[in-house]
Amino acid sequence: MANLPRRMTAELIGTFWLVFGGCGSAVLAANFGGVGNPVGIGFLGVSLAFGLTVLTGAYALGPISGAHFNPAVSIGLWAAGRFPARDLLPYIAMQLIGAVAAGCLLKLIAAGAPGFVIDPNAPGAFASNGYGAFSPGGYGLMAAFIVEAVLTAVFLVVILGSTHARAPAGFAPLAIGLALVLIHLISIPVTNTSVNPARSAGIAFVIGGPALSQLWLFWVAPIFGAIAGALTWRVVQPGDA
Amino acid sequence: MANLPRRMTAELIGTFWLVFGGCGSAVLAANFGGVGNPVGIGFLGVSLAFGLTVLTGAYALGPISGAHFNPAVSIGLWAAGRFPARDLLPYIAMQLIGAVAAGCLLKLIAAGAPGFVIDPNAPGAFASNGYGAFSPGGYGLMAAFIVEAVLTAVFLVVILGSTHARAPAGFAPLAIGLALVLIHLISIPVTNTSVNPARSAGIAFVIGGPALSQLWLFWVAPIFGAIAGALTWRVVQPGDA
Amino acid sequence: MANLPRRMTAELIGTFWLVFGGCGSAVLAANFGGVGNPVGIGFLGVSLAFGLTVLTGAYALGPISGAHFNPAVSIGLWAAGRFPARDLLPYIAMQLIGAVAAGCLLKLIAAGAPGFVIDPNAPGAFASNGYGAFSPGGYGLMAAFIVEAVLTAVFLVVILGSTHARAPAGFAPLAIGLALVLIHLISIPVTNTSVNPARSAGIAFVIGGPALSQLWLFWVAPIFGAIAGALTWRVVQPGDA
Amino acid sequence: MANLPRRMTAELIGTFWLVFGGCGSAVLAANFGGVGNPVGIGFLGVSLAFGLTVLTGAYALGPISGAHFNPAVSIGLWAAGRFPARDLLPYIAMQLIGAVAAGCLLKLIAAGAPGFVIDPNAPGAFASNGYGAFSPGGYGLMAAFIVEAVLTAVFLVVILGSTHARAPAGFAPLAIGLALVLIHLISIPVTNTSVNPARSAGIAFVIGGPALSQLWLFWVAPIFGAIAGALTWRVVQPGDA
Repeated sequence: MANLPRRMTAELIGTFWLVFGGCGSAVLAANFGGVGNPVGIGFLGVSLAFGLTVLTGAYALGPISGAHFNPAVSIGLWAAGRFPARDLLPYIAMQLIGAVAAGCLLKLIAAGAPGFVIDPNAPGAFASNGYGAFSPGGYGLMAAFIVEAVLTAVFLVVILGSTHARAPAGFAPLAIGLALVLIHLISIPVTNTSVNPARSAGIAFVIGGPALSQLWLFWVAPIFGAIAGALTWRVVQPGDA
Repeated sequence: MANLPRRMTAELIGTFWLVFGGCGSAVLAANFGGVGNPVGIGFLGVSLAFGLTVLTGAYALGPISGAHFNPAVSIGLWAAGRFPARDLLPYIAMQLIGAVAAGCLLKLIAAGAPGFVIDPNAPGAFASNGYGAFSPGGYGLMAAFIVEAVLTAVFLVVILGSTHARAPAGFAPLAIGLALVLIHLISIPVTNTSVNPARSAGIAFVIGGPALSQLWLFWVAPIFGAIAGALTWRVVQPGDA
Repeated sequence: MANLPRRMTAELIGTFWLVFGGCGSAVLAANFGGVGNPVGIGFLGVSLAFGLTVLTGAYALGPISGAHFNPAVSIGLWAAGRFPARDLLPYIAMQLIGAVAAGCLLKLIAAGAPGFVIDPNAPGAFASNGYGAFSPGGYGLMAAFIVEAVLTAVFLVVILGSTHARAPAGFAPLAIGLALVLIHLISIPVTNTSVNPARSAGIAFVIGGPALSQLWLFWVAPIFGAIAGALTWRVVQPGDA
Repeated sequence: MANLPRRMTAELIGTFWLVFGGCGSAVLAANFGGVGNPVGIGFLGVSLAFGLTVLTGAYALGPISGAHFNPAVSIGLWAAGRFPARDLLPYIAMQLIGAVAAGCLLKLIAAGAPGFVIDPNAPGAFASNGYGAFSPGGYGLMAAFIVEAVLTAVFLVVILGSTHARAPAGFAPLAIGLALVLIHLISIPVTNTSVNPARSAGIAFVIGGPALSQLWLFWVAPIFGAIAGALTWRVVQPGDA
């Protein structure tokens, strides 16, 4: 591991990449073309983009910071005994800074197209997360909580399992990145998929409105799920033998 | 290998993940948007989701239980001499519990969208498997049996080959997960793709109707195929050098 | 390497898998649903399917036979000095048997859907390869020859390079399978993509008509390209140091 | 590393592959079929194609030349202290030759379809890069500059990080190729995605018009970004310890 400032910079860059790439693909490319020219990347392309930000960021920056890029992951790793409590705040602060920077830059780029406007009250506006009237498919609070918590819980199991000493070396970024692809394939219609409080905050701070007033859920549910996943892992993990 | 209770818990979690992720993507995201807003993930996204559940689950939980997540796989591995008969029942029981739990939770989440109903008589309803009138493309019993048996047979060859001592170490979860992607790319129109009796049962127990009355096929054909694949592998496998 | 009968059986299984999976996804799933329900996998899904047959087959069977599954690959490897001339005929014979078996079985399954018919004169009928009036996009003979030859040539460079002693160990099936994905992403509109005489023959023997009368091109162009790729590789390959 | 002529030939082949495969999939397959038969690969398929050219080229040719295939990458590696200045010109010259050769060959193949014409004034014509009136989504110069520079900067961080001695061995071509997939998923609507001056030049030299008059941006922005990415990496890189 590098020293703390380097690790913090790596977390900032990686979370910037996650939000810029994942939300950027959603804002710029998901619906491109439409019915008469159906070339947009859709939810499948957005799912792939989110996962590939983590896959690529983790191969590049994992040796420096561990490549969390997500406050729920940092907290889950702490709950699993794999990350020191004293580093939680610095990591989360940098993740938030990277996410907000990405949201701002993305807004600047998106504004470069003619006729671009953000309607903060549209479901999933500017790749924001939401529930109820602000869920892409109109899913209510309970469904949103459950799906975010369950998906983050299994995400942590994948992270903890694939980075365990007994797992094949070098494949963890692949497994973790592709787990994030999968998570998005399931849940974009429900909440526009968070499982990452920094990703939700980075967009909410930029567009305000319901994304901001509903932001609490995308802190509570992923963190709850991450801790549950970490505790589940402690039950099943193999000995270090 | 961990002790039996840990292995059983890993099988439960992994099969839960397979059914929740694979069927979840089909139920929640496959058709989202539609003609005027074609952003749903389609059969391609569902295929990817099923495969990634196994890829990610196998990197995380493979070192614990071997990551079967599928009664046909457990039986095929037994037929190939790679899994003890005494563990078959505990594994299959946990796979079923995980699959049914996933089906129930998925129903709870899907019900969070306005206007959600399940019509158990619609082909492929709630990601169920079926043949004849309940096949997505109307394929009859014989086509359904052949495709399930052949695909499970080759699936076992991929599993047995890629985990063999002579295959490159660490790549088996990648090969096996992507084989499941491929299997779905071929056969969703025929049977909605099972190759996994637990996956079929997890949905059938939740929605009843034709999915339940046709469930027998999705035990018989995958298990038949798995044993055929295992015996095929015994013919071609390299010596242990 | 295993003995010749085992290697031949592995080539038969692998080429069966290539044709059954690749052409099967094209026949059964590419156009499913259509405008009102656009869930079919399209050319992107078919491209992925072809590549994943080779990726999965190569991880499973590569340690046995080298996982050619393609007469042009066997001939290219011979031209590169990596495969003995005396094994060419046995390999190619088994590849053809596997391909034709896959074509027959696929026809049997496809016939299980109501209203299924094959019109051998439709461009790309039953996943067949063709040029001119039988190219999916109406591409003429010269374009078809060039694209098949160039893509097979680079395919051989990828095969020879990624299996070279200096390339990272274990990744060759990944690189080769994904190269076949890429090749299909480019060229399905031109010839429906062959780069593999056995794959073309397996379908042509089953449906007859133009696929059979144009089959010669899908032997000549891929083999020409494979030899050109092998000779190119001999120029650039690193020493064995 | 091989001697310079072999390395130069490898750069020529790899850049040819990048432009032929990436732009080829865009020109030949992106819009195939359309509304009544939506089987084209869209921006998602084109993104995958570009990334897979680099992934496959890097596994095959990386041991020979390092697999840059991109003047901005060569310059970024030089700025990071990983590539000697004296090799810059030979590398870039061969990259340009490979790119232009691919553009010419692609035009020859595309002309094999009935009714094929290139309108150099259409946005994204023949897979060209552009801004303003020649951006696929009409994005202005500033948005185009920012997106190209930022994406190339992070691309270099992924390249430098995943090839660092502390990163897991063998995975760099996977990470780098998938980073290029991601970059295209984000930015095709903005500039048709360059991040590679040779790729832009290879098409611009073939079709002329706005692609040529706007070509300067696709040298300036990627090279600026590449140097910025290299300097960023020098700040965060771990010690060689």
